[in-house]
Amino acid sequence: MSTDRSARLVRAVEARRTRESWSAYPEAPSRHPGGEAAREAGLKAHESRLGGRFDLPEHPGSPAVARGEVSPYTGEPLGVAYPVASADEVYRTALAAWPAWRDATPETRTELCLAACDRIYERSFEFVPATMHTAGQSAAMSFTGSGTNALDRGIEAIAAAWSAMERVTPHATWTRGFGTAELSLDKRYRIVPRGVAVVVTCASFPAWNAYPAIFANLATGNPVIVKPHPTAVLPMALAVAACREVLAGAGFDPGLVTLAVDTAEAPVAKELIGHPACRIVDFTGSAAFGAWVEANAFPAISYTETSGLNAVVLDSADDLAPVLRAVAGSLCLFSAQMCTSPQNIFVPRAGVRTSSGTVSFEEVGEALAEAVRQISTVPRRAASVLAAIQSPATLALVDGLRDRGTVLLDAAPYEHPEFPAARTSGPLLLATEDPAVYGEERFGPVAFLVPAEDREAALRTASADARDKGAITAFCYSVDEDFVGRAEDAFALAGAALTSNLTGPMPLNFSAAYSDYHVSGLNPAGNASLTDDAFVSGRFRVTQSRRPAVSHRR
Amino acid sequence: MSTDRSARLVRAVEARRTRESWSAYPEAPSRHPGGEAAREAGLKAHESRLGGRFDLPEHPGSPAVARGEVSPYTGEPLGVAYPVASADEVYRTALAAWPAWRDATPETRTELCLAACDRIYERSFEFVPATMHTAGQSAAMSFTGSGTNALDRGIEAIAAAWSAMERVTPHATWTRGFGTAELSLDKRYRIVPRGVAVVVTCASFPAWNAYPAIFANLATGNPVIVKPHPTAVLPMALAVAACREVLAGAGFDPGLVTLAVDTAEAPVAKELIGHPACRIVDFTGSAAFGAWVEANAFPAISYTETSGLNAVVLDSADDLAPVLRAVAGSLCLFSAQMCTSPQNIFVPRAGVRTSSGTVSFEEVGEALAEAVRQISTVPRRAASVLAAIQSPATLALVDGLRDRGTVLLDAAPYEHPEFPAARTSGPLLLATEDPAVYGEERFGPVAFLVPAEDREAALRTASADARDKGAITAFCYSVDEDFVGRAEDAFALAGAALTSNLTGPMPLNFSAAYSDYHVSGLNPAGNASLTDDAFVSGRFRVTQSRRPAVSHRR
Repeated sequence: MSTDRSARLVRAVEARRTRESWSAYPEAPSRHPGGEAAREAGLKAHESRLGGRFDLPEHPGSPAVARGEVSPYTGEPLGVAYPVASADEVYRTALAAWPAWRDATPETRTELCLAACDRIYERSFEFVPATMHTAGQSAAMSFTGSGTNALDRGIEAIAAAWSAMERVTPHATWTRGFGTAELSLDKRYRIVPRGVAVVVTCASFPAWNAYPAIFANLATGNPVIVKPHPTAVLPMALAVAACREVLAGAGFDPGLVTLAVDTAEAPVAKELIGHPACRIVDFTGSAAFGAWVEANAFPAISYTETSGLNAVVLDSADDLAPVLRAVAGSLCLFSAQMCTSPQNIFVPRAGVRTSSGTVSFEEVGEALAEAVRQISTVPRRAASVLAAIQSPATLALVDGLRDRGTVLLDAAPYEHPEFPAARTSGPLLLATEDPAVYGEERFGPVAFLVPAEDREAALRTASADARDKGAITAFCYSVDEDFVGRAEDAFALAGAALTSNLTGPMPLNFSAAYSDYHVSGLNPAGNASLTDDAFVSGRFRVTQSRRPAVSHRR
Repeated sequence: MSTDRSARLVRAVEARRTRESWSAYPEAPSRHPGGEAAREAGLKAHESRLGGRFDLPEHPGSPAVARGEVSPYTGEPLGVAYPVASADEVYRTALAAWPAWRDATPETRTELCLAACDRIYERSFEFVPATMHTAGQSAAMSFTGSGTNALDRGIEAIAAAWSAMERVTPHATWTRGFGTAELSLDKRYRIVPRGVAVVVTCASFPAWNAYPAIFANLATGNPVIVKPHPTAVLPMALAVAACREVLAGAGFDPGLVTLAVDTAEAPVAKELIGHPACRIVDFTGSAAFGAWVEANAFPAISYTETSGLNAVVLDSADDLAPVLRAVAGSLCLFSAQMCTSPQNIFVPRAGVRTSSGTVSFEEVGEALAEAVRQISTVPRRAASVLAAIQSPATLALVDGLRDRGTVLLDAAPYEHPEFPAARTSGPLLLATEDPAVYGEERFGPVAFLVPAEDREAALRTASADARDKGAITAFCYSVDEDFVGRAEDAFALAGAALTSNLTGPMPLNFSAAYSDYHVSGLNPAGNASLTDDAFVSGRFRVTQSRRPAVSHRR
């Protein structure tokens, strides 16, 4: 392995162990080695792809335009044609490419996975417009959340896979007595990859889960078929292209990473997952399809991340203003189109205690609405924080909820300073105590202020919902250490990652690679976790051979 | 942790890493600290249990005799009554016992698991007659294979669980900049056990898979419901009793380990596995039910070990006699009622090359039959090697195969020197080239000599059968290094552990804890492996909490 990549691997393994802050790449676009020229070149490359054929040399299939790809910023179809092959064809390609990769050493595979991450990073400015005009993210989030941060989650998975493979001793001499005789056996242990992996990615944040899945599979020796959401193919096609180039450049068959493009009308995921050669499924998307995958992937194993009812429990604070600014920020961030965005804000009916007295439920609602407005009604700020709405269905969903509670703040579009046709929406903030309204996930810019009998009831409902209906994150504000402790216990058992008393510049739902476990596997929000050992340990198996040591040592 | 147990844990972790030979307990009954007195006391304790109520203080349920328990040695029913409770009752018991155990430290749980192993070892001489008179094993195998060796597999699983939990950093301080501000978070990571585990054990070798499953579950914080095969309850009841005593002695609720006894007529496994509170299933038994478990355990996760078509590929040898003695020994060992016993012996049609010329297919058959006879027709030797036939169904199965090929050696009972009523049978050895005969698992004392076009065809068929129909072990004899290498490649991909050119005192299918991986998870013989990281890493999850470090550090 090159000295650079070897050092990076060591550093990633170490960061995963200490769980301290580290990143493989600078988060600031200004520190990208390509500079301003790279940004311009990236935009140019993106524009040259629109309405054309996406170049994937040697990829099976015939070109067909992905009609689902329509920019949330311009309303224009991207018109990119990708090679579309049958499920059988991509499997044939993957299986044909497999043997040399399966037989390559973990070192080789790991290095090439790290090289693919580098290639993706080098092309960050091509990924930025691709992510913006499919997922609807802002340019900044496209560069970091879907770029450097997502690559870090990928490298974290590579490090986890490396560590898991390194723990498998390759050779042993085993000696013991049988009766009066002594026997020595040479034993060899071999890492055998499981087989073809299908990686199903989502619409609004594809890269963040795709990279861990793709690289955990590749590092452990499995070919990967990427099945992108039909509305967000381009960023995945770019990632697939980068992987294929790196693999081919090292003499491997690029068929190790293929693209399976489908349409909403003729989805191909079930066929891919049900294929007899399918051995691993990584899925990010709706809870309903995630549950289907978990129940039906067998004999393949599955790793899922879906969504949930993330909650805020608001008990008390010295100063409520920064708390509400923090909560408002997380309701606005990418218009809450993230699986970590909070949805339900539980407030004791008697109000929130602060050092300057109790703030009533109504006052909390008004102040939170105002804090949101400070972001959502200032176009330049809104553009960088809320960005665009990925799917028209999200706006319809928000519309349909307006009369289901007391409107504290109505959803309203803002005028994007750069893209006048952008599909935008500030959050809808409703007060409701109806579990039929707040008790299921409503994906997008909508949040509920829910009155609870008291803080214990708030905690009870929020943690029970997390456990029973799924949640990835939870948030608690309290000046009472005992209550925070109880919240930690309750959400730990419910399987939601709890953030307590956080205010300030970090988005509440920021999840850091190497440090934050993402999804616990303890509730319906998913069965896998980025990145615990279980995320990688099942992707390969160990087989062994043994023979007498004396006469046949070789 | 006590110094002794801590040292033992360190040693087990080390042995699992180096994969060198080590055992926690001496394998020789003569070295048991209780001496001859313990042997007599054990037998007495066993006899006092027959026809009585099995003592499991505080266990839910009403006593009912397990009518399936009939000694293969005496033909007499054991008549032991165990507490029988409904599935709901045992789950209630397990769930009520869980919280304190879930909250206990990994250190505490690990130490108590090791203490339970010690308790079982202390009582070895009670387990010996219990194993003999249910599973039909010899006294020697009951002491080692089902005793010290099985406990070692249990300790191996404890060590694996310990290592997996130790890799989870409990606490970190995470610091990074956001814009011009710097933020520090205190992060805590918590191991959360998955929930109630059901351990389904088999008839002929229950302890060997039960201990790894029970202790992997307990060490990672999960309550365990043991569902023994209705014909082999007693050894599992003894193990459950030992665990309960150790747990209760340390102040934990003994309901953490319960027994779910059923009958062949009213089996309870599906109800236990389908229970809404079931989170983990460990299964050892038939391939058919194992496949059902794998497909239907969801939302529980499953770890299965079933059975397969273990093969011998006989290409060449300097001296064929010791090879055939070794193969004959493994056909005879416990009358091939082991999931590792070979069944199909592939021999090139042209014969086997040796340093003194080629031995024809027919001659190989004759010599192998004679080598078996040297064991199976000498009562004292047969008693210690073949032991008894666990189930009458096995004899019927062997009977039904007699006319499916050319009989090289007929199955014949031997007269057990100590138990005249013992159900015994030497192996049936048939020559056949009909895949309908040798192409499925025939559990018990039957083996097929299969002519192959040449050694490559032999290897091709044997490894394809392993991959497609399941196999745990494989055996190859060849003086040609290249051929052995090809066999290693073929069986590695097929997921069978290959032993090459082994002759001498070690039984071919001996599998050593800490050193030999048992089952690969790559073929239908099971999805789990003793003991890779995947065997333990999914039994717990990690949840986290985080908060600003400065103002709220505690």
